[in-house]
Amino acid sequence: MKKIKASILGATGYTGGELLKILLRHPRVEIKHVTSGSSAGKKVEEIHPSLKGLCSLVLEKPNVKKIAAGSDVAFLALPGGQSPKIAASLTAKGCRVIDLSPDFRLDLHTYHKFYQPRHAAPHLLKEAIYGLPELFPFFKAKIFHCKIVANPGCYATAAILALAPLVKGGLIHTDSIIVDAKSGISGAGKKLEPMYNFSEANENMTPYAVAHHRHMPEMEAILTGISRRETFVTFVPQLAPMTRGILAISYAKLKKPVGLDDVKRCFARFYEGKPFIRLLEDGVMPQTKAVLHTNFCDIGIAWDKRTMTVIVASAIDNLVKGASGQAVQNMNLMFGFKETEGL
Amino acid sequence: MKKIKASILGATGYTGGELLKILLRHPRVEIKHVTSGSSAGKKVEEIHPSLKGLCSLVLEKPNVKKIAAGSDVAFLALPGGQSPKIAASLTAKGCRVIDLSPDFRLDLHTYHKFYQPRHAAPHLLKEAIYGLPELFPFFKAKIFHCKIVANPGCYATAAILALAPLVKGGLIHTDSIIVDAKSGISGAGKKLEPMYNFSEANENMTPYAVAHHRHMPEMEAILTGISRRETFVTFVPQLAPMTRGILAISYAKLKKPVGLDDVKRCFARFYEGKPFIRLLEDGVMPQTKAVLHTNFCDIGIAWDKRTMTVIVASAIDNLVKGASGQAVQNMNLMFGFKETEGL
Amino acid sequence: MKKIKASILGATGYTGGELLKILLRHPRVEIKHVTSGSSAGKKVEEIHPSLKGLCSLVLEKPNVKKIAAGSDVAFLALPGGQSPKIAASLTAKGCRVIDLSPDFRLDLHTYHKFYQPRHAAPHLLKEAIYGLPELFPFFKAKIFHCKIVANPGCYATAAILALAPLVKGGLIHTDSIIVDAKSGISGAGKKLEPMYNFSEANENMTPYAVAHHRHMPEMEAILTGISRRETFVTFVPQLAPMTRGILAISYAKLKKPVGLDDVKRCFARFYEGKPFIRLLEDGVMPQTKAVLHTNFCDIGIAWDKRTMTVIVASAIDNLVKGASGQAVQNMNLMFGFKETEGL
Amino acid sequence: MKKIKASILGATGYTGGELLKILLRHPRVEIKHVTSGSSAGKKVEEIHPSLKGLCSLVLEKPNVKKIAAGSDVAFLALPGGQSPKIAASLTAKGCRVIDLSPDFRLDLHTYHKFYQPRHAAPHLLKEAIYGLPELFPFFKAKIFHCKIVANPGCYATAAILALAPLVKGGLIHTDSIIVDAKSGISGAGKKLEPMYNFSEANENMTPYAVAHHRHMPEMEAILTGISRRETFVTFVPQLAPMTRGILAISYAKLKKPVGLDDVKRCFARFYEGKPFIRLLEDGVMPQTKAVLHTNFCDIGIAWDKRTMTVIVASAIDNLVKGASGQAVQNMNLMFGFKETEGL
Repeated sequence: MKKIKASILGATGYTGGELLKILLRHPRVEIKHVTSGSSAGKKVEEIHPSLKGLCSLVLEKPNVKKIAAGSDVAFLALPGGQSPKIAASLTAKGCRVIDLSPDFRLDLHTYHKFYQPRHAAPHLLKEAIYGLPELFPFFKAKIFHCKIVANPGCYATAAILALAPLVKGGLIHTDSIIVDAKSGISGAGKKLEPMYNFSEANENMTPYAVAHHRHMPEMEAILTGISRRETFVTFVPQLAPMTRGILAISYAKLKKPVGLDDVKRCFARFYEGKPFIRLLEDGVMPQTKAVLHTNFCDIGIAWDKRTMTVIVASAIDNLVKGASGQAVQNMNLMFGFKETEGL
Repeated sequence: MKKIKASILGATGYTGGELLKILLRHPRVEIKHVTSGSSAGKKVEEIHPSLKGLCSLVLEKPNVKKIAAGSDVAFLALPGGQSPKIAASLTAKGCRVIDLSPDFRLDLHTYHKFYQPRHAAPHLLKEAIYGLPELFPFFKAKIFHCKIVANPGCYATAAILALAPLVKGGLIHTDSIIVDAKSGISGAGKKLEPMYNFSEANENMTPYAVAHHRHMPEMEAILTGISRRETFVTFVPQLAPMTRGILAISYAKLKKPVGLDDVKRCFARFYEGKPFIRLLEDGVMPQTKAVLHTNFCDIGIAWDKRTMTVIVASAIDNLVKGASGQAVQNMNLMFGFKETEGL
Repeated sequence: MKKIKASILGATGYTGGELLKILLRHPRVEIKHVTSGSSAGKKVEEIHPSLKGLCSLVLEKPNVKKIAAGSDVAFLALPGGQSPKIAASLTAKGCRVIDLSPDFRLDLHTYHKFYQPRHAAPHLLKEAIYGLPELFPFFKAKIFHCKIVANPGCYATAAILALAPLVKGGLIHTDSIIVDAKSGISGAGKKLEPMYNFSEANENMTPYAVAHHRHMPEMEAILTGISRRETFVTFVPQLAPMTRGILAISYAKLKKPVGLDDVKRCFARFYEGKPFIRLLEDGVMPQTKAVLHTNFCDIGIAWDKRTMTVIVASAIDNLVKGASGQAVQNMNLMFGFKETEGL
Repeated sequence: MKKIKASILGATGYTGGELLKILLRHPRVEIKHVTSGSSAGKKVEEIHPSLKGLCSLVLEKPNVKKIAAGSDVAFLALPGGQSPKIAASLTAKGCRVIDLSPDFRLDLHTYHKFYQPRHAAPHLLKEAIYGLPELFPFFKAKIFHCKIVANPGCYATAAILALAPLVKGGLIHTDSIIVDAKSGISGAGKKLEPMYNFSEANENMTPYAVAHHRHMPEMEAILTGISRRETFVTFVPQLAPMTRGILAISYAKLKKPVGLDDVKRCFARFYEGKPFIRLLEDGVMPQTKAVLHTNFCDIGIAWDKRTMTVIVASAIDNLVKGASGQAVQNMNLMFGFKETEGL
């Protein structure tokens, strides 16, 4: 079985580590280069002790030419803002790119507003495809030919998967959406800030970036695209005292007169044949524990009939379906592998 | 300084233990009797090892006559359904009652619908006062004379304190309220069920009783009473992997045209002089850690201006302001002590 | 590639669930029957929601005849005391057995002292092999032909792997051994006891069964067998507030005059070629996080030269190398598969 | 009731915060100055949000002259190495000092070996008293007149309290002592290092500074002083996934022939009348949860009779009895207050 060659730029963070873990046992991938700005020269196992004995790779300084020459695909797990320039060089040399940063997710205007003041490769934005495979018709065909995949944000993945069937089906008022999402601390990466210190984060819950988190415009852009109506999402992310996992509860007002069964049928149709979406039985609600270390998104649906409020609970592992697992799912589709291969 | 005599019926659970801890250092209270159905004869420290050396009391079988004769006030920290009969006997003999169960919180009709099929002392419902001291005008005068205090539910406390100023001020649509609340596991008491086992609850978040939790009608009844309009609350409680603490995020649609500053002024006015409400500075959001082991409710306010959605985050310790601390706050007011005494 | 047929008796507990997870992706295994006394008729995913979409098996009442007829090997993940009778029936019909209970680990005398008053199949004890593959010379040959594998206890695995090279090499006084081991709560299985409740176990550490835990005689019997000298282990297990993982610190007095390098060489020789033992670099100590969800045992070695005390820290995942992973490792060797297959 | 004036230098860390919390409700103390190098000008509640509404103090740049002039006692909760110079200035002006750093705990030689290369006020070492009140005869008399209290290390407190009765009574071999201690992460203070990040520390246990931690010479010096024989402690500290609490298990070989009851009597005699030592009943072992937020040290005793190994488990809250609570206990004794006042 022929293998493709994959490289990881930025292999020392949590998403980089999770990518390594998945790709090391992927039957169709050979890992070629793993890079780090600050830890070049170290063995991977020094940074990720769980990989000791499983990976003999050494971290290299990022050399884009060398990587492009030796790789079919490169995963960019870099801090925001660094991807555009690197992606331009890589794709120019025929190396396809899966970018885990936010740099190719938004239109230029929104990007400038919420992220960097200047995008280093705006001409590439139209080459990039938003990599949420469960979402779009003809996605497989499109991604098979694309150069750049913008891998979605973790909160955005959880929220959009909960809301897409509803906006697509025209079932809800698009100005009534609230997403209340709780994330494990690994969502912040390895940043050393007081609020992520164990003694602060443990036995604690707190909201942050209330109604102005950067995944909010991402959710709105994608949902607006699907619904073809301007869609607002009031988004409140919260830190929960756990390492991994996102639980998002999405609320919206139903346009009457629709029953809960209609809503459920809408989801079933929308996600038919999607291997990573698990629609839970009536009355069962998702728990983050059931999706940890998997690429699944579990979805449970309820409503408050009195106020016609539909309630969709969705759970993912922020490092897998919310980042590295989804990146590999995208890779599988880019290269014509089975969607679930290695996941 | 003269002391009142207080007894605790049901002293082995978490709320009973927290009550003991608070009352033991309360300068105006002498604890007279502590009872337990199943652990009578044991020393308190066998059940609550943290109280070793602080409390020499022995658990007794509940003897209502004896308790009534020897106590100025009795705290009922019993499983739901047991309080009415006991409260009837105690109050008949002049012993005042603070009931931590739901048995005196609701009107008879709602109680029958959500709790027990038959209330054993319906005539006492009109004697009972709902013990949320921050809420009502003339509360101090009323509670000073009342026989029975219905101590509010933990979720209800967090949600109502977040919403009362808004409904009182007529600022929001009363059919637009959503409360998304996360609780530590101690909210379930000492129940032995798989979902509360450490191996299940740790590294996990999950919603439960979605839109049909028993604290929902309690929130609705109180808010309806304040707003004098039928008020609905779409309530989704969730288990968070922590021992204590509730973080509630309440959402509602503002009736235009009101600014965020107006909203904040409304809260400041409503809670002026209330010692246990801490309104946080602009841009600061509550964290459960800051209220643990205290009787405070911390409140942070934000909005999504685009959809005129107001967002109120409130945090309490479910065992203190959500149960035993509030019970002692009520006791202080019943007996004319300083509201914060011993808290 | 031909597959063997495996069944799991007692598939609803944590070790049963972990076995399922491993075997479902094992390329050489087809799972035939999964049984449960109390949950027969339910789908596996109802008990183990993480397996939804991965496993369509239905739990059956245990029917030993049917299982024996249809299985090459049966894993017994049953409460202690049930295995002997079942193992007798299964092996009589040619079905090999891997028993995760303590029922075949000890000699009859010690078993009667620490476990059940009566062993139901004492004649089978001599057919059973103690399944710690890293330990014994000729283990592969022996296990290839054996009928019953007694899968080691979790604490015993961590401690024996830390001590075996030392006693085998005659480096330590066999009456000086102390094992101080900390385990995640899943080690207790799904038992519903107050001490395993989240609200009790979280933010808590406590020793239990001090110097009389049942894995103590298991450690002593195996180490005595290896050292050919009566070996005592002072064993103090402790509950740590985590779901999985064991960290054991083993202490012993060195017979002088031996250097730390000699000790390390002894370990390196003893574990040469063992794929699941990771001896850490000088100065590096194991962390349970690095072995979670793996079959590795990480070992770090230090000493206090002043008192000639050697200190060996070993870390495993109690549900993998401490139970189900090791069971599959044993299965691999029983059937001549690669030792690491599927792990 | 007359109050003394106390100041806290270094009030922004965890021990500083805990000191504030305790002193704010201490009936005999008025807090005068609270200082911070980096956060001067901020309100205390900005650093310690739990103190909002309880403390209106503003952090000041440390001004030793002003502090000395206005304070009866100063608590130094500063990083190691800063205390000697400050203590010299303060005591010269008659302000007594309780130093929570290691700077006055050891003799000069050991201090130079394990801590700073140069002690800035070596002449003051003989003025300092090691502040473990349960330990020494005539302690109350001595501390009442002393200028400087060296507040013990957290691990040292837990271990020494477990071992002092044994070495004082001559019951154990002083070269056989092992201390295996597990600490919550707050023991590391607010340091921002990867290992203290929630995502690393949660669901993890790991030893560190094995047999060379700085509290080891502190334990050895004190125990040697008590036993009047050179005493070695093989000390292995470990990080446990909890915020607070230390559980230390201390092991030593008994000099025969002594029974477990003799050992227990020895502890009972040694700790008679000590209000913060709780000797647990036979068969009961300490749990850190029972001492959280208290100044208690809980002690449980067992043995392995076969090898004459005594096992003493001790539990404290590292921030209270292991730091700030003990500091206040020392303050109470320095000023002739009741030992338990405010604790």
